[in-house]
Amino acid sequence: MSHLFKRLSSTATVTIKATPSKAHHHVPLPSSAFPAGYLLTGLHAGVKKNPGALDVGLILSTSQRPTSAAACFTRNAFKAAPVLVSDQIITQNAGRARAVVVNSGCANAVTGRQGIDDAWAMVRATDALLPPSTNPKHAHETLVMSTGVIGQNLPIANILAGIQSQAQNSPSNSLAPDFAAWERAARAFMTTDTFPKLRARTFSIGGVQYRMAGMDKGAGMIHPDMGPASTSFASGQQLHATLLGCILTDAAVSPRSLQSALTYAVERSFNSISVDGDMSTNDTILVLANGAAAAESREIDEETDSQAYEVFKKELTEFAVDLAKLVVRDGEGATKFVTVTVKGAPTYKDAHSIASRISTSALVKTALYGEDANWGRILAATGSIPLSPLPTSPSEASQIDPTKVSVSFVPSDGSAPLLVLVRGEPENVDEVRAKAILEQEDFGVLVELGMGTEEATYWTCDFSYEYVRINGDYRS
Amino acid sequence: MSHLFKRLSSTATVTIKATPSKAHHHVPLPSSAFPAGYLLTGLHAGVKKNPGALDVGLILSTSQRPTSAAACFTRNAFKAAPVLVSDQIITQNAGRARAVVVNSGCANAVTGRQGIDDAWAMVRATDALLPPSTNPKHAHETLVMSTGVIGQNLPIANILAGIQSQAQNSPSNSLAPDFAAWERAARAFMTTDTFPKLRARTFSIGGVQYRMAGMDKGAGMIHPDMGPASTSFASGQQLHATLLGCILTDAAVSPRSLQSALTYAVERSFNSISVDGDMSTNDTILVLANGAAAAESREIDEETDSQAYEVFKKELTEFAVDLAKLVVRDGEGATKFVTVTVKGAPTYKDAHSIASRISTSALVKTALYGEDANWGRILAATGSIPLSPLPTSPSEASQIDPTKVSVSFVPSDGSAPLLVLVRGEPENVDEVRAKAILEQEDFGVLVELGMGTEEATYWTCDFSYEYVRINGDYRS
Repeated sequence: MSHLFKRLSSTATVTIKATPSKAHHHVPLPSSAFPAGYLLTGLHAGVKKNPGALDVGLILSTSQRPTSAAACFTRNAFKAAPVLVSDQIITQNAGRARAVVVNSGCANAVTGRQGIDDAWAMVRATDALLPPSTNPKHAHETLVMSTGVIGQNLPIANILAGIQSQAQNSPSNSLAPDFAAWERAARAFMTTDTFPKLRARTFSIGGVQYRMAGMDKGAGMIHPDMGPASTSFASGQQLHATLLGCILTDAAVSPRSLQSALTYAVERSFNSISVDGDMSTNDTILVLANGAAAAESREIDEETDSQAYEVFKKELTEFAVDLAKLVVRDGEGATKFVTVTVKGAPTYKDAHSIASRISTSALVKTALYGEDANWGRILAATGSIPLSPLPTSPSEASQIDPTKVSVSFVPSDGSAPLLVLVRGEPENVDEVRAKAILEQEDFGVLVELGMGTEEATYWTCDFSYEYVRINGDYRS
Repeated sequence: MSHLFKRLSSTATVTIKATPSKAHHHVPLPSSAFPAGYLLTGLHAGVKKNPGALDVGLILSTSQRPTSAAACFTRNAFKAAPVLVSDQIITQNAGRARAVVVNSGCANAVTGRQGIDDAWAMVRATDALLPPSTNPKHAHETLVMSTGVIGQNLPIANILAGIQSQAQNSPSNSLAPDFAAWERAARAFMTTDTFPKLRARTFSIGGVQYRMAGMDKGAGMIHPDMGPASTSFASGQQLHATLLGCILTDAAVSPRSLQSALTYAVERSFNSISVDGDMSTNDTILVLANGAAAAESREIDEETDSQAYEVFKKELTEFAVDLAKLVVRDGEGATKFVTVTVKGAPTYKDAHSIASRISTSALVKTALYGEDANWGRILAATGSIPLSPLPTSPSEASQIDPTKVSVSFVPSDGSAPLLVLVRGEPENVDEVRAKAILEQEDFGVLVELGMGTEEATYWTCDFSYEYVRINGDYRS
């Protein structure tokens, strides 16, 4: 509404800004940064047409101790075959698994019975790379993930041949614990991503040092809403994500507590990002905890040692946020990385819903692309969300009071936020400063509702010509 | 997810297709097509900078009978001043009003106390154009609407001078009942619209012929959700819309029944369209019914003559759909007009929510722009909506069964739909036929859920480079 008579009456040409290079976000790490007891690789099996492109990734836990596994899967009704199969395995094994296989280039989604068979075939082929199971109840110990085109069958023979080429005695076995191997695995996750998303983190609990490393991928159909396995063996709130990610640690964590820590972490990380507002059929975040850091330590568990659990949960959440942000940073067509914070809400859910709406608004996102401090669009998005019922009167919803709402733009250099609306009254905005803030790649939007003490943060990107080009022009 | 390695590594130029000319959707009408008892005009008061641009519209009922008025207003928490003022008048007068004043170019939204004062000043100035009220309870009889930039004050002196220039004895009075006058009023609604949106319709009830005519405007921040006045004097479901529209009829309808017919009509028309998924602070649809067609007829009322009421409701709904479609047709950057129908849903609300999600999905809308029959994106959008609780077990939600879902593209030439997914199984799609359908400006998307008998229709447009240009590049 803030622009008049700008319509196009004839064909025109526009210049698409080059997306700023994101390559510097891929950083080499010392092999010592990675958790003990994992072997990884990535290989080209022929799902992607480009001969050099890695499209199958393998992660094996070689720990002598039981490896715990937890997962959050998309809540989309059209769950892809690998989601259904991984869900079943993790449930049957009550939170234990020792391997992950991933392919990129084909999502194995909406592929019917054949898709389910193919996902199981990937599981069985990867199971065969593992040392024999010590738990006879575990028929299968591999979790499977796929990403790429919907509605096409996997080139399963190629994929199986690729997996089999990694058998221990095979001359082409490239499974390894070093940085190069982790990087190969991370590259095998990529679709429209412009760089492999690989991070590592060290933390201590009770004097023991642990490591955590992981990888994820985007870069479109990103508006996750993920929850734990369908027949959950763990307690915890049901949550909802399309992206793939895998986090690996050498801490020992009980399956129940690994799931509850992951569910908490995912809500505040992967379920709080948006590239385009579209939820995928394949979103999956997996975590393995193999206990390889210390042979004798007790499994971290919420009930037996809540202090250790809280430290682990905090570390996992911070790490998940780091990985989630990389997906937004590399969003399709993204030229901006914007942190949207809603404060002063009556409930976390309200704060999260409003931050999500601002983060997905086409008008807000095109204004961010245009480096335009258009707070009117932010306000309209804020006001379009119905709030939760009042705790004191469940039949009535809370109401935003426009005279209590403030909006500011937050520069990334640590200088003071630029207030554009203060308790419902527009400020006389310093346009030069506004432009200086919005010209940066990174900045924040802060909405203060003045209704309570709850807050939520969302990470989003702008909406550019390149997004339209990637997603609209791809047949031409 | 259905495109790989398409990222841009350097600055590029793209050609923006010219939006197909929409001028032929503005059609001249005989003056006899318009309802009796209305005088209208549009004038340039100086809100818009362009000297020729009409920016204030006036609609006066000159009927000797009481004129009923009904309205649906945006549900946005940041309701603009004209919304708050119109809401108050229509409530105080229990559904009676005789005039409408509209300005374009400035939304008078987020303008604090001054904004409220300005809206009242427009009301008073227009009231002064009316013959003296016969109802002493009606202190004010004008409803007010504004559209344009948020957060700026109206140039109120110019607007008031413009309204005053239309006094009966003024030499510059251009108020008239003919086509040219209706067209001037319709032009005064326009912001980024490329043509004035004006339609008329004739209908009969009980042997009496009535007329209905109206106008509306878009063309961005269009995802209405409107409901009746806040302290509703009428029964009817609370609903939610940013667009402005005004429908005028010479039928006599009781205020209560006019509101309930409008509430029904708006849900199935203006609340079922989307250009960009963003709800405005100003969305308003007004209807006046002045009884001027027949001096002696009883007011149509739901309780005293339900048959007449049902005919009126049906006519109003069909007319509202016609006006609502014009807004989508002329949506910012729109090159396609797409009818999204969801059938076989357990409830109307579920069908409406899924149709809304498909209609707002950035991935679906960019695919429509790219003329790409990407049913995977349609399916992912469909599956991302949580359904209503089961009537038999309110703690459980209904679940979509992927094996029951079919998707097709519906050509606008009346030929058979092109099935792309049948009960969960992808069809071998005839790509030549798919391309032929999607190359048209008009076509439909049909999703059959196979869960029930409810259905809903949404009207949407594509997401183009021009949308980004209009909304992102407007400072450059």
